[in-house]
Amino acid sequence: MSGGSVPDSLLVTGIGELGLEGGPAALLIAGGQVAWSGPADRLPEQAGGERVDVGGRAVIPGFVDSHTHLVFAGQRAAEWEARMAGRPYAAGGILTTVRATRDATESQLADRTRRLAAEALRSGTTTLEVKSGYCLEPAGEERMLRVASGFTAETTFLGAHVVAPEYAGRTDDYVELVAGEMLARCAPLARWADVFCEERGAFDADQSRHVLRAAAAAGLGLRVHGNQLGPGPGAGLAVEMAAASVDHCTHLSAGDVEALAGSGTVATLLPGAEFSTRSPYPDARRLLDAGARVALATDCNPGTSFTTSMPLVVALAVREMRMTLAEALDAATAGGAAALRRDDIGGLSPGQRADLVVLEAPTAAWLGYRPGVDLVRAVVRGGQLAAGSWPGRGAAGIA
Amino acid sequence: MSGGSVPDSLLVTGIGELGLEGGPAALLIAGGQVAWSGPADRLPEQAGGERVDVGGRAVIPGFVDSHTHLVFAGQRAAEWEARMAGRPYAAGGILTTVRATRDATESQLADRTRRLAAEALRSGTTTLEVKSGYCLEPAGEERMLRVASGFTAETTFLGAHVVAPEYAGRTDDYVELVAGEMLARCAPLARWADVFCEERGAFDADQSRHVLRAAAAAGLGLRVHGNQLGPGPGAGLAVEMAAASVDHCTHLSAGDVEALAGSGTVATLLPGAEFSTRSPYPDARRLLDAGARVALATDCNPGTSFTTSMPLVVALAVREMRMTLAEALDAATAGGAAALRRDDIGGLSPGQRADLVVLEAPTAAWLGYRPGVDLVRAVVRGGQLAAGSWPGRGAAGIA
Repeated sequence: MSGGSVPDSLLVTGIGELGLEGGPAALLIAGGQVAWSGPADRLPEQAGGERVDVGGRAVIPGFVDSHTHLVFAGQRAAEWEARMAGRPYAAGGILTTVRATRDATESQLADRTRRLAAEALRSGTTTLEVKSGYCLEPAGEERMLRVASGFTAETTFLGAHVVAPEYAGRTDDYVELVAGEMLARCAPLARWADVFCEERGAFDADQSRHVLRAAAAAGLGLRVHGNQLGPGPGAGLAVEMAAASVDHCTHLSAGDVEALAGSGTVATLLPGAEFSTRSPYPDARRLLDAGARVALATDCNPGTSFTTSMPLVVALAVREMRMTLAEALDAATAGGAAALRRDDIGGLSPGQRADLVVLEAPTAAWLGYRPGVDLVRAVVRGGQLAAGSWPGRGAAGIA
Repeated sequence: MSGGSVPDSLLVTGIGELGLEGGPAALLIAGGQVAWSGPADRLPEQAGGERVDVGGRAVIPGFVDSHTHLVFAGQRAAEWEARMAGRPYAAGGILTTVRATRDATESQLADRTRRLAAEALRSGTTTLEVKSGYCLEPAGEERMLRVASGFTAETTFLGAHVVAPEYAGRTDDYVELVAGEMLARCAPLARWADVFCEERGAFDADQSRHVLRAAAAAGLGLRVHGNQLGPGPGAGLAVEMAAASVDHCTHLSAGDVEALAGSGTVATLLPGAEFSTRSPYPDARRLLDAGARVALATDCNPGTSFTTSMPLVVALAVREMRMTLAEALDAATAGGAAALRRDDIGGLSPGQRADLVVLEAPTAAWLGYRPGVDLVRAVVRGGQLAAGSWPGRGAAGIA
């Protein structure tokens, strides 16, 4: 175990729990990837490099937050306060953010996004998806995606978020703009396209299908906001189009659940939105018990879920959606990776990117057992310490 | 405004919101107390000393967490996981912590308490109440209170937490021990006495009254854990005995609410416990609308609410108990102070202790608008920076 120091390699020892496997465990990082992970007593002889002893703390994969709206200007705290006082959520609130985002410069947007991305990183998120959708015109959507590209490869074109105010009453014309000129400008900057598809209050199935087909033809992967406001065609359309994910899933029919379970489409649940809109939570158990792949994400946005905290999302998933901690942790890491069709992130197996979180806790269960407490001691992304601080060698266990 | 620098004085400027009053505001601290606070344009000419510009951030009073069980050993994450999977909360779980706490040395207990108190401070709590109740024998309860005294003046003797295992089936004998030898040893170290009073599953009204009378005779102020597990005599007894507070209040009768509203007894709500036990939340609106004084606290303990986060408690109070942000912030600061019969803390009026939190937010509403996000930028206690860091002079506003 003494072997020569390899410049970019790191050996993490003293792990109390690795993912949800008991400790003591160790993890060897080389070239930004996990080179080896497992029980400490099976550590390969030649494992070397810099060492860090995490003193019995739990180590989990970095969170994969596969659904955020992190590029925006302005804020809507007053709308949140009004809603909490009993006024129902009006999707029109998005237009408040549209006005502010259109007025913001690219550098203003980048500054805000940088702060939020840093905040997300500090709470353990090592991969972020980021959507457009607050400009609703070609140049603005392109600007949003340029900003998003500065922070993540997982950029999503969401021109079909709501109908632009200039197109009020002319939804089909707006859909043509989105699927035409707007898509053409945005596709080079986006990996994904997304539509907000609902029976009422957003784009209907035909309009959504039109946008998704054009996006697929432009080489983008597909995602759907669906079944948030009520029962609707979103989940079915996502499965029909082989989208990577349908997000929200608050109001699913038995047929939707069956279709998702038999598909490669991930059901992404966003309990932060239900928390901040005082809405009923999705039925996660029905999805899990049917065998659907489930992801958890923040939906971070200034209207209905202004949180970057995946630990909060995990705690809500257990408390409010009756997921086990193991299911919630899996959904917040590997599930998010599946929703992004990535197998290089979301876990700590050899060959995966070395994205991990050292918790100020002996087990990952503390993410639910200690709600509201900042348990993130250190965040490693691509093998590099990205936030927090390493516990000292031989640091006392914290149980 | 140029006046000579007074060594222990500090002028905080650029406050975007002070409590819930709009900004720009300023706050002058001298001798560890608030010397002046108000609109920036009314700042007295002679205000001087060191200056800090908080760049448009909101400043609130430090949180007063008037109900914690911060001295203990061991942990009960497995019990939490079992409960989340559907097993109901058994009050007997406390005995798990009793065994661990009896086995711990005073220095081990102090180490753990120090970490939790520091964690609470980082999340904005500048005053903590801390109870005994995990040893249930005279020397151990005394030891717990000695540890607690190292962290706060608000120490509470809770020998009547549950019946000690040695007294199983002999509750009245245990009550005699609590009201006799145990109280005699503990009274010098405690400001308060507390009893867990319930119709079933804890101490009944007569047993509780006996302990409280003995405690009052020993010079202690009175508090009651009541009406957590079901309807019961706790709230009524608290009013009858002029206790400072009755805590939990999850199951109150109309008569209880009326009695509380007409009394000097504070109703302290602990939504962290309902969150972590998946129990129905107290009806805060009924209490507020009846005119009762309400406080919010964490109930931090290793069984049913292992959180030190007053921001989480505030967010839950709004989301789950329909308190307004203003009501929740008041309950978490001035309400907690009232529950401790203190008027020197819980607010930012001249003469009060300079306990305050600078939020990474333009208004206090963000405590609910941004759940799960660490918004505590700086914590000042007694006029001194106690956690976090001051924003730089002229720091950019963060809206």
